[in-house]
Amino acid sequence: MYFSGATPGRLASEYSEVQSSRLKVSLPLPSVLKTAFKLVDGPPSSAAGNPDEIAKLFPNLFGQPSAALLLGDSSAAASNQSLKIGVVLSGGQAPGGHNVICGLFDYLQERTNGSTLYGFKGGPAGIMYCKYVQLTTDFVYPYRNQGGFDMICSGRDKIETPEQFKQAEETAKKLDLDGLVVIGGDDSNTNACLLAEDFRGKKMKTCVIGCPKTIDGDLKCKEVPTSFGFDTACKIYAEMIGNVMTDARSTGKYYHFVRLMGRAASHITLECALQTHPNVTIIGEEVAAQKQTLKSVTDYIANVICKRAELGYNYGVILIPEGLIDFIPEVQQLISELNEILAHDVVDEGGMWKKKLRNQSLQLFEFLPEAIQEQLLLERDPHGNVQVAKIETEKMLIQMVETELESRRKQGLYNKEFKGQSHFFGYEGRCGLPSNFDSNYCYALGYAAGALLQNGKTGLISSVGNLDAPVEKWTVGGTALTSMMEVERRHGKFKPVIKKAMVDLEAAHFKKFASMRDDWALKNRYVSPGPVQFVGPTSNDINHTLMLELGAQA
Amino acid sequence: MYFSGATPGRLASEYSEVQSSRLKVSLPLPSVLKTAFKLVDGPPSSAAGNPDEIAKLFPNLFGQPSAALLLGDSSAAASNQSLKIGVVLSGGQAPGGHNVICGLFDYLQERTNGSTLYGFKGGPAGIMYCKYVQLTTDFVYPYRNQGGFDMICSGRDKIETPEQFKQAEETAKKLDLDGLVVIGGDDSNTNACLLAEDFRGKKMKTCVIGCPKTIDGDLKCKEVPTSFGFDTACKIYAEMIGNVMTDARSTGKYYHFVRLMGRAASHITLECALQTHPNVTIIGEEVAAQKQTLKSVTDYIANVICKRAELGYNYGVILIPEGLIDFIPEVQQLISELNEILAHDVVDEGGMWKKKLRNQSLQLFEFLPEAIQEQLLLERDPHGNVQVAKIETEKMLIQMVETELESRRKQGLYNKEFKGQSHFFGYEGRCGLPSNFDSNYCYALGYAAGALLQNGKTGLISSVGNLDAPVEKWTVGGTALTSMMEVERRHGKFKPVIKKAMVDLEAAHFKKFASMRDDWALKNRYVSPGPVQFVGPTSNDINHTLMLELGAQA
Repeated sequence: MYFSGATPGRLASEYSEVQSSRLKVSLPLPSVLKTAFKLVDGPPSSAAGNPDEIAKLFPNLFGQPSAALLLGDSSAAASNQSLKIGVVLSGGQAPGGHNVICGLFDYLQERTNGSTLYGFKGGPAGIMYCKYVQLTTDFVYPYRNQGGFDMICSGRDKIETPEQFKQAEETAKKLDLDGLVVIGGDDSNTNACLLAEDFRGKKMKTCVIGCPKTIDGDLKCKEVPTSFGFDTACKIYAEMIGNVMTDARSTGKYYHFVRLMGRAASHITLECALQTHPNVTIIGEEVAAQKQTLKSVTDYIANVICKRAELGYNYGVILIPEGLIDFIPEVQQLISELNEILAHDVVDEGGMWKKKLRNQSLQLFEFLPEAIQEQLLLERDPHGNVQVAKIETEKMLIQMVETELESRRKQGLYNKEFKGQSHFFGYEGRCGLPSNFDSNYCYALGYAAGALLQNGKTGLISSVGNLDAPVEKWTVGGTALTSMMEVERRHGKFKPVIKKAMVDLEAAHFKKFASMRDDWALKNRYVSPGPVQFVGPTSNDINHTLMLELGAQA
Repeated sequence: MYFSGATPGRLASEYSEVQSSRLKVSLPLPSVLKTAFKLVDGPPSSAAGNPDEIAKLFPNLFGQPSAALLLGDSSAAASNQSLKIGVVLSGGQAPGGHNVICGLFDYLQERTNGSTLYGFKGGPAGIMYCKYVQLTTDFVYPYRNQGGFDMICSGRDKIETPEQFKQAEETAKKLDLDGLVVIGGDDSNTNACLLAEDFRGKKMKTCVIGCPKTIDGDLKCKEVPTSFGFDTACKIYAEMIGNVMTDARSTGKYYHFVRLMGRAASHITLECALQTHPNVTIIGEEVAAQKQTLKSVTDYIANVICKRAELGYNYGVILIPEGLIDFIPEVQQLISELNEILAHDVVDEGGMWKKKLRNQSLQLFEFLPEAIQEQLLLERDPHGNVQVAKIETEKMLIQMVETELESRRKQGLYNKEFKGQSHFFGYEGRCGLPSNFDSNYCYALGYAAGALLQNGKTGLISSVGNLDAPVEKWTVGGTALTSMMEVERRHGKFKPVIKKAMVDLEAAHFKKFASMRDDWALKNRYVSPGPVQFVGPTSNDINHTLMLELGAQA
């Protein structure tokens, strides 16, 4: 049986029972979105950094207030309005993306009269080349509460050059767009704000609203307590970590080194640690703050292993953020020297090229396992740069720890057999079925985006707050994207960027982790969160990071 | 707060909410185990193969009937009996092991008077060295419905030599054991039967009952429809595969190569395929039956990729059983030649050693990616043999497919960019929280083992059937272990072994898969099973393999 309409050509038999049961679940809305509401502007806003530069870059938008939706009669938005709205998914997948579109779609159906929603296909390129599909009830339905971005797919293109902005303008005019919703991470929301500025500057009617998406959890601020997808991805990784912990304890002979997705910030690793209590957790931001070296990270892990050996434990679980080596200054230095050398020289077998490395970099290079040395020399991206992302940090650390333990063994300081087992948890998490939290949060984000657009708002990011309360009590509004920005200097020019929310070493959840990690290191405090539940007492739990951050705000 | 008793030193705070909720779930029993029952013997049994040899190896046990538990007054088992029973977990973890112990414990509590249950620690070595813990209500409770084997841990030792049998006898006498329950795979159950034979031959009172454990699913027969752990492990792997499929479809640019645990048989891979509908599934038994080569497997995958490219799909998901290369005759040949050569010769840089390879083996060796060549030459076990298990088959296939596609590109037959992404799903699955099915099945297996022991049965494997019906209607009994055996000739001697249940290419579930795989290959019929649910409409589903096998039997 096809779903009625069957536009996406998906058979009902291709839904698992869990997927089908999720399809049918109705989504709750915050109270303020269920009745008549009015939009109330806050005070003028500034920027997260360099307000003067941001003001110059966004002459039309800078300083605009954030907006809150409050109960009350709406005068601005006539419910008989008919809108033409576009929506685009930008960048990597995050669980819940489909529900943002569902929320937006339902808003237009319920609160406007005969509106049209276009889904741009394959990310921002869909805007530039005007590739879209008109979203209908039948088209949208099969994606409710489902993972992935396959309804309209996504892409990593950016709208950057004047020609590309021109293409976007043409699409907006051709489709007579009243609004555009950009669902993406920090870069995509920066791009959304630039588009909003461009359209406003050209006196076009098209408004642009962003939505905070990224499993990495590094797009957030006071008004945007979390990015969607983080909750689900962490829960899926924590399920796997918990299983591996039980395995470690049962078998008693493996050290599992788990690398977790998340290039820039270590939020995922920290959240998974809070959920599962591993023996060792490396947080990139701390490594950077303490100017740690690869050797000191290795030593820290080896120390825990040796102490555990004394206690009779020859097993454990170690969490490593994907971006770890990006946080280590000496590695950055080595890589930049290698990029320079390899751009001009051939790597000779005899190793003469190494003489061009600075002393410290040479020492680090020689310290690295052979396989990693080869990766550094061989794997290059199209620009000739070392591909840091391809380095399997967990395997590298296993080898370095092994070498360190071997040397301690010779000194009589360690007498066990070390067996490292590597894991990378990444793709499994970013396309899972969204948790109840992400399902509801995304639906509210999308619904709110519709409300903001209908009220003629632009350059805001959809903002849903008070997330530790029941859904009915969630707050809803829009935050000025310019207020989240600062500038970076690239090629002598100022570029606006949304300030990345890195792990704050002073925040409540990091402090909680830091106060417990020594206990976790030596005792086996493992917690196995188990699979995400959609029904039952645990199904509406939110993640520790969000709970603790909201608690600290309160 | 500690759990009352707190013997295992586990804090209540170390339980996730899902774990806690599982602790509290009461376990249903088949009707026949809920009231008075009697044990009814069936006809005399034979063996799975070589009955004459099995008869010689088991003079005391061969031919004994299997037994069924039926409703009715039990005359044999006086409920005021006080028994001393031992239990041991043997081999790799499988979800549900703890519940077998819980079932056995509850049987002794509810159906006997003041019995004692000893848990042997760390597997069969615990029996040999008489290392045990007395299991009490407080000790057992925290492990109900929990994953892993950490209650008493497991081990891979075997009781093989006359001295080791002597040790086991001494332990049985020292603890005055009426019975021993061995929870393990095919090897461990063979061992259980040898112990039963030994004890019976020596007129000892200790009876031995086995329980069918292995996620691999290759320990089963008509009376034992499945081994426990298979259901949960497959569901966990299928969750991850489903997520990766959604990722593939959303991103549109990766081929995910997923290697799945399960060395000997490909049941896990087949079950995961039935749950998720991947584009390519390699089944080891079929590869062996068709005498396929690595080249033909590579070509098959490359063919699907090229056909999909013509349809506009540059992505997909490919499932590979961990034991694949064990099924390929030419690889076996190469490895045995390498073992021979490397035992005597040094591998010279110039490659003179290669001249000792047969022509076909040399061709295969040269066909392999360099990294795999190195693994074959470098990684050896303590006996000097190539460690096949360490070969990352999924990465090997990615490289070989890449090379094949490159050559097709040059012939103008393929013009996409191939990006392979490797995964290994193993440890994550074998220690997960047991599914409702495995929780209930294991509890019944343990409870039944208690009933068999109380009735003086030995050399049987606990057998619970009719598993596609509600739990109340499950059948319960014990199957003569000798009836599952055949012999293998090793070092000129006959060794009894339980006949491994490989994937039957004539069975209903394989045929169903075979009839659908061409459709799955080219169309995107992906199904995402989602996380295991413990509550709600999908929570009591059983796996496809079991459903189809039971359906075929009916």
